[in-house]
Amino acid sequence: MHALIVHCHPEPDSFNAALTATARQTLTEAGATVTVSDLYAESFDPVEGPRHYTERADADYFSALTEQRHAGNTATRPADVQREIDRLNAADLVILQFPLWWHAQPAMLKGWFDRVFVYGGLYTGRKRYDEGYFRGKRAILSVTTGGPAPTFSRYGRGGPIERLLWPIHYSLHYMGFDVLPPFLTHGVQGSGIAYQAKQAFERHLADHKRAWAERLAELDTEMPIPFTGWADWDEEGVLHAEHPMRWV
Amino acid sequence: MHALIVHCHPEPDSFNAALTATARQTLTEAGATVTVSDLYAESFDPVEGPRHYTERADADYFSALTEQRHAGNTATRPADVQREIDRLNAADLVILQFPLWWHAQPAMLKGWFDRVFVYGGLYTGRKRYDEGYFRGKRAILSVTTGGPAPTFSRYGRGGPIERLLWPIHYSLHYMGFDVLPPFLTHGVQGSGIAYQAKQAFERHLADHKRAWAERLAELDTEMPIPFTGWADWDEEGVLHAEHPMRWV
Repeated sequence: MHALIVHCHPEPDSFNAALTATARQTLTEAGATVTVSDLYAESFDPVEGPRHYTERADADYFSALTEQRHAGNTATRPADVQREIDRLNAADLVILQFPLWWHAQPAMLKGWFDRVFVYGGLYTGRKRYDEGYFRGKRAILSVTTGGPAPTFSRYGRGGPIERLLWPIHYSLHYMGFDVLPPFLTHGVQGSGIAYQAKQAFERHLADHKRAWAERLAELDTEMPIPFTGWADWDEEGVLHAEHPMRWV
Repeated sequence: MHALIVHCHPEPDSFNAALTATARQTLTEAGATVTVSDLYAESFDPVEGPRHYTERADADYFSALTEQRHAGNTATRPADVQREIDRLNAADLVILQFPLWWHAQPAMLKGWFDRVFVYGGLYTGRKRYDEGYFRGKRAILSVTTGGPAPTFSRYGRGGPIERLLWPIHYSLHYMGFDVLPPFLTHGVQGSGIAYQAKQAFERHLADHKRAWAERLAELDTEMPIPFTGWADWDEEGVLHAEHPMRWV
């Protein structure tokens, strides 16, 4: 088993970094091999745009999808994008480790989606969802939040966490991944300035490192989040009229 | 009335650019003043991290919130962030114009949230939601999608658009904005390579420019999207047990 951890946090001593280290160690001890894409450490460029395409399909009008497809066809993909695709191709399991910033992934990781999941090579109009490029592989989000757990519950003021993560989960489903329920760590306050805060941080961290290691040991047996697929939709891309999920 | 349009698209001749031009013209003709933050044209840096903070509160451990607050207190905010805050302060209406990429805003615009909505200066534990810094101002998303409208309906395979935009809407609510229902333009295919495609693009654009101008003329009378606020939540930040929204 080979795992790719896409790690997104600017601080090398962060709670997120400790969870990534835990995942690397736990999976390695279980016999897997592990690669880490450390987006901040590698200065990943999250901005999709003309500067990445030296051989343009259309030099007068920049369309990301057109240039992504053309770069794939002409073997001129940006080196960092090709590197991430190679890493994804080699992985059976993909872990995205990040803090929740503004009810979503940080811009750095959002741009990893924008740039790495390229049109043409990795998806087309038909090669999506349950026929997606990465089908057979598993993906899981490991997310830290700054608020207490109740605020991310169904009626919490932070917003139900399932709803906040839905666009990310659905993007992974779009690419064909089996998406496992997320691993959540609430109440992570970044700084360790005060001694007392540092002690609380370390205790909280120890608890969640243990919980994450236990969770990782069980991933093989977990059921992915259910999503609809091509057989569920009519010609307009809408759930069939009699589909049971119309009533949930 | 002063409006700020935060425009996020890499192509100056894009459908998105035309909608921004329409908004600028329509609002100006109605007597308003308009500023445009053209994120790609201004090479906005969407990556929050240590490189933006020269005078650190904690040089050994980077916490975005700690450094954002410290930079505000010491008047050392990054110039581009301060410029965006000044633009927001001057605006009565904020329009976010962007294409839907991977079920969310492009990384460039995600990073605008990550960097510009700074802790300490623009929000604190209590100064949020209906007590947020920008209360009294209105915000609206104008979003283009690449798929047909039915695929973004309640049971569509693209995902219900309300669900996709929820994290962005909720972030604006968090900052105190009254958030108006979004202006949506579906089925925007970027390129204008073929003559026929260019004609269809121009027709589609003309229709939606007209619709957007009509919508903008009515914004003053529109009701914002309803969100819960401090009076609705208990001490744990969860809707009161008897709250009517528990049953929807």
